[in-house]
Amino acid sequence: MASLFHPRNNFALPFSILLLLLPIFVPATTSAAKARHFKWEVEYMFWSPDCVEGVVMGINGQFPGPTIRAKAGDTIVVELHNKLHTEGVVIHWHGIRQLGTPWADGTASISQCAINPGDHFVYRFKVDKPGTYFYHGHLGMQRSAGLYGSLIVDVADGQKEPFSYDGEFNLLLSDWWHQGVHEQEVGLSSSPMRWIGEPQSLLMNGRGQYNCSLAAQFGNLSSCKFTGREQCAPKILRVEPNKTYRLRIASSTSLASLNLAIKNHKMTVVEADGNYVQPFSVSDMDIYSGDSYSVLFTTDQDPTMNYYVSARVRGRLPDTPQALTILNYKPNAASKRPSLPPPLAPAWNDYAHSKAFTSSIFARPGSPAPPRNFHRRIVLLNTQNRMNGLTKWAINNVSLTLPATPYLGSIKYKLWHAFEDRPEEDYDREAYDVTKPPVNPNTTAGSGVYNLRLGTTVDVILQNANTLTANVSEIHPWHLHGHDFWVLGYGEGKFREKEHEKGLNLENPPLRNTAVIFPYGWTALRFVADNPGVWAFHCHIEPHLHMGMGVVFAEGVHRVRDIPKSALACGMTARMFMSRDNSNTTVRG
Amino acid sequence: MASLFHPRNNFALPFSILLLLLPIFVPATTSAAKARHFKWEVEYMFWSPDCVEGVVMGINGQFPGPTIRAKAGDTIVVELHNKLHTEGVVIHWHGIRQLGTPWADGTASISQCAINPGDHFVYRFKVDKPGTYFYHGHLGMQRSAGLYGSLIVDVADGQKEPFSYDGEFNLLLSDWWHQGVHEQEVGLSSSPMRWIGEPQSLLMNGRGQYNCSLAAQFGNLSSCKFTGREQCAPKILRVEPNKTYRLRIASSTSLASLNLAIKNHKMTVVEADGNYVQPFSVSDMDIYSGDSYSVLFTTDQDPTMNYYVSARVRGRLPDTPQALTILNYKPNAASKRPSLPPPLAPAWNDYAHSKAFTSSIFARPGSPAPPRNFHRRIVLLNTQNRMNGLTKWAINNVSLTLPATPYLGSIKYKLWHAFEDRPEEDYDREAYDVTKPPVNPNTTAGSGVYNLRLGTTVDVILQNANTLTANVSEIHPWHLHGHDFWVLGYGEGKFREKEHEKGLNLENPPLRNTAVIFPYGWTALRFVADNPGVWAFHCHIEPHLHMGMGVVFAEGVHRVRDIPKSALACGMTARMFMSRDNSNTTVRG
Repeated sequence: MASLFHPRNNFALPFSILLLLLPIFVPATTSAAKARHFKWEVEYMFWSPDCVEGVVMGINGQFPGPTIRAKAGDTIVVELHNKLHTEGVVIHWHGIRQLGTPWADGTASISQCAINPGDHFVYRFKVDKPGTYFYHGHLGMQRSAGLYGSLIVDVADGQKEPFSYDGEFNLLLSDWWHQGVHEQEVGLSSSPMRWIGEPQSLLMNGRGQYNCSLAAQFGNLSSCKFTGREQCAPKILRVEPNKTYRLRIASSTSLASLNLAIKNHKMTVVEADGNYVQPFSVSDMDIYSGDSYSVLFTTDQDPTMNYYVSARVRGRLPDTPQALTILNYKPNAASKRPSLPPPLAPAWNDYAHSKAFTSSIFARPGSPAPPRNFHRRIVLLNTQNRMNGLTKWAINNVSLTLPATPYLGSIKYKLWHAFEDRPEEDYDREAYDVTKPPVNPNTTAGSGVYNLRLGTTVDVILQNANTLTANVSEIHPWHLHGHDFWVLGYGEGKFREKEHEKGLNLENPPLRNTAVIFPYGWTALRFVADNPGVWAFHCHIEPHLHMGMGVVFAEGVHRVRDIPKSALACGMTARMFMSRDNSNTTVRG
Repeated sequence: MASLFHPRNNFALPFSILLLLLPIFVPATTSAAKARHFKWEVEYMFWSPDCVEGVVMGINGQFPGPTIRAKAGDTIVVELHNKLHTEGVVIHWHGIRQLGTPWADGTASISQCAINPGDHFVYRFKVDKPGTYFYHGHLGMQRSAGLYGSLIVDVADGQKEPFSYDGEFNLLLSDWWHQGVHEQEVGLSSSPMRWIGEPQSLLMNGRGQYNCSLAAQFGNLSSCKFTGREQCAPKILRVEPNKTYRLRIASSTSLASLNLAIKNHKMTVVEADGNYVQPFSVSDMDIYSGDSYSVLFTTDQDPTMNYYVSARVRGRLPDTPQALTILNYKPNAASKRPSLPPPLAPAWNDYAHSKAFTSSIFARPGSPAPPRNFHRRIVLLNTQNRMNGLTKWAINNVSLTLPATPYLGSIKYKLWHAFEDRPEEDYDREAYDVTKPPVNPNTTAGSGVYNLRLGTTVDVILQNANTLTANVSEIHPWHLHGHDFWVLGYGEGKFREKEHEKGLNLENPPLRNTAVIFPYGWTALRFVADNPGVWAFHCHIEPHLHMGMGVVFAEGVHRVRDIPKSALACGMTARMFMSRDNSNTTVRG
């Protein structure tokens, strides 16, 4: 089977967008970067994200958390207060590379100790690159509990985007369960495992409709009635005719891969994961958990009508109604029902459609190109396995179990007992049949780390395989912390150097922080290990990570200076620092 | 109104018990105290405590946690591993005074930092006194989540109890909700407050029956069918005729005060909270959360029958079916239904009955007597209040909010900013009307501490009052850590020295660690502040403590040596120790 990385664009651009994409030359100006301060309190609260009340993890009484809006070059300072009663908390700034501030990456057990109940931690980091980002919890399944929000970085003062628009909207997509996250976690860790099932609702900006539909006239759900003040009232996109809008989209879903469309409106993709891409036009687009995009669309349709904006589940037999909101042409009332049904999504398992979208994404000319050669290639086999009656996901037969001491501290201070041996560089590519359930389904748990030599170019081949169930292989969106990577290509079946090496795209591969592997396929990534720190690389499906689907990269940790000690006040690093004290207090291991 | 402390015993003892209570003189022998080691893992698991499945916090896969059985003088060593994903954990050893080991008291924010997920802590403490104890979580509402178990200390080798018996049973009583504890917590912290309501079930040794009754023939619930292997199958008490048994009873309820009875069998109370009491006979007994007792009973009834053992809710209009198990005379089948109905409980609000029981408890002759005089008397007014829309319980108008840094560390290391100013010593006894809702319902939150001078005798007067609702005053069982106290007396209305001082019982007051205040009443306690450490004193009703109903006593903390630093690896103590380190790592506050 052919791989899908051919660098061509199958999609025609509408003329109105083409005009907007003309290069814009901006004179360099001095821009004064700012520090933007936020004081946040995290706590649980009752909320009705989909009109059914449950408990969400909110920030300052809001769900989703407050949107951070900054300009490239700014420093974000978030003083995060943990107001939970028994749980730690951290926040990961998804897509921000944390250049020089690896302790601010917000990954419990990796970049820092979880913030204790009643305590606080100050995240201070620079947002160096304009783009559409988001943030979310990164301890246990706190993202699934609703701990997320948007982070939008505009170009610096005096700079311009390489496209223009008249207005913009932001849609943060997520999925929602009525079962509490703690119970979901217990189920995933039980023997036999109890799967969380499909979400009850899809949310747009934290708003969904469980028992009714905005498009009731086209389906068999009852009609939603909103005053607009309900927590689950949809966020209406109010537009004027004949304008161009930027729609920022990010997916913080726990599980669902989504397909988004605006009825009768083409979208031009211009940004992916905070990187400009070669613009291309689509009628619908796939968005995997961890992805972010900007698209432009022009309100060139009949302005007397309103139109549905829809998000549907992809890649899993959908049991969840589509999320809907309204593209509301002024001066129509927002409540005016669209005359046309919501956009039709491609069949959930139409992977050819998904692959066509994914393989249409290329770097915008002028983007950094990848090094031509790699120093090291790590092949990561993704398998579903069993361990002592539990169901696990494993990478090269190791299911990631995070240690009590954050790697950033244990590696910096050479506490080698804080984690386990280094994992395997590859799997048995000759013997392993990726099209069948594993012959030996047993895996082991481990907390080993891939040590990357600072400054080297690393290739990662993500190799998908069959799950424990015959004829099933799932989609996994892999997200890398601390870096963008170039997506060199996607392919079917087993990756083989001889066959596939030459086809990798070294010309204009897109820079991303998240890339999907398709069922039974492989994905080839390249990045430069140039950011001293310790970085998670994992499937962004929350229960999959919880079940061990991730690895950890460490690079140049000896070069990391000035780690705030409050980031290391737990586990073996705490014991080490405290044992250096010679007051009359003892340390026990 | 007269107070109820008159030192006389209204209850006649059955002859069979009297014989057993003859003093027993035991020659002193050398007994080899042992260290008993346990390795425990705390994790959530699915369980059906009352035949309805929910999530419980278990230890080593068991609910309730394993019973610790030791001998007086032994050292208990529990290596506690936190296998929760996001929550800290601690375990308090209820009734163990922790003489010389205040860091092992297992109170988060008071005696230690919560143990982080993935980490562990070693509790090492001596059980110096035989008795019936239990252990439970002391962070958030983890006790309500099921984190509890029994701790039974036998007399040392060569020693004998001052009574004898042919066999023994242990009943650990608790209450159970179908709503998860996290959601309960969110409700209690919401504005307006959402009360947890009455428990769905009462449990005996973690076993209850929600939708059926062992006494179905006497009520309108359906009949329970058990093979005996179900998680909710009752623990049958199998007895032989004409023997005497010791029944150990402890209550770890979150909310419910209970009344326990064995149909047609009198019980002789011989121990309360790990202290021998003057034996007295009862047909039923009240057990408040935090209490423990031993009673003796003789199987002197018709041996061809089985009998019900029942526990019912006291002091709140009961909405919860009684807990039942069977006193099963051998060789009857356990499944043989008792011919007599379960014991009738007194009316839930028959406080006279409750007071008669409570005021029948006196120290066994030879028990330590209280000092005749006190150095300091602290009067604690118990009120229900409001704060920023929240409902709180407050003591002298301060609702306890625990700090991020354990007091044991912050006081030891003089980190005075770690908590707030000292609270009030008394309330405005002239002006405050305890029979009415508070005139000013507003309270403040605080983390202040009562500093007790080491070695002094401290009196505490617990003063009950009306709640926010007219004509309502509730029962509160107050539990003191680190000490036993003498219960000098109970009274009605407002405590007034002139009127009540002389009536306090200094002759044979019982030593307890838990004492109740009755609605609109007061309770007078005395203890010697002779145990260096920081000690919680609080209402043992879990949601009440969660809503601030407690105070903190600190005594002789300068004398505490050798605090394990792992007990202090959080908050300001962690920052202090880590800042003393001069490696290239910075500390941020």
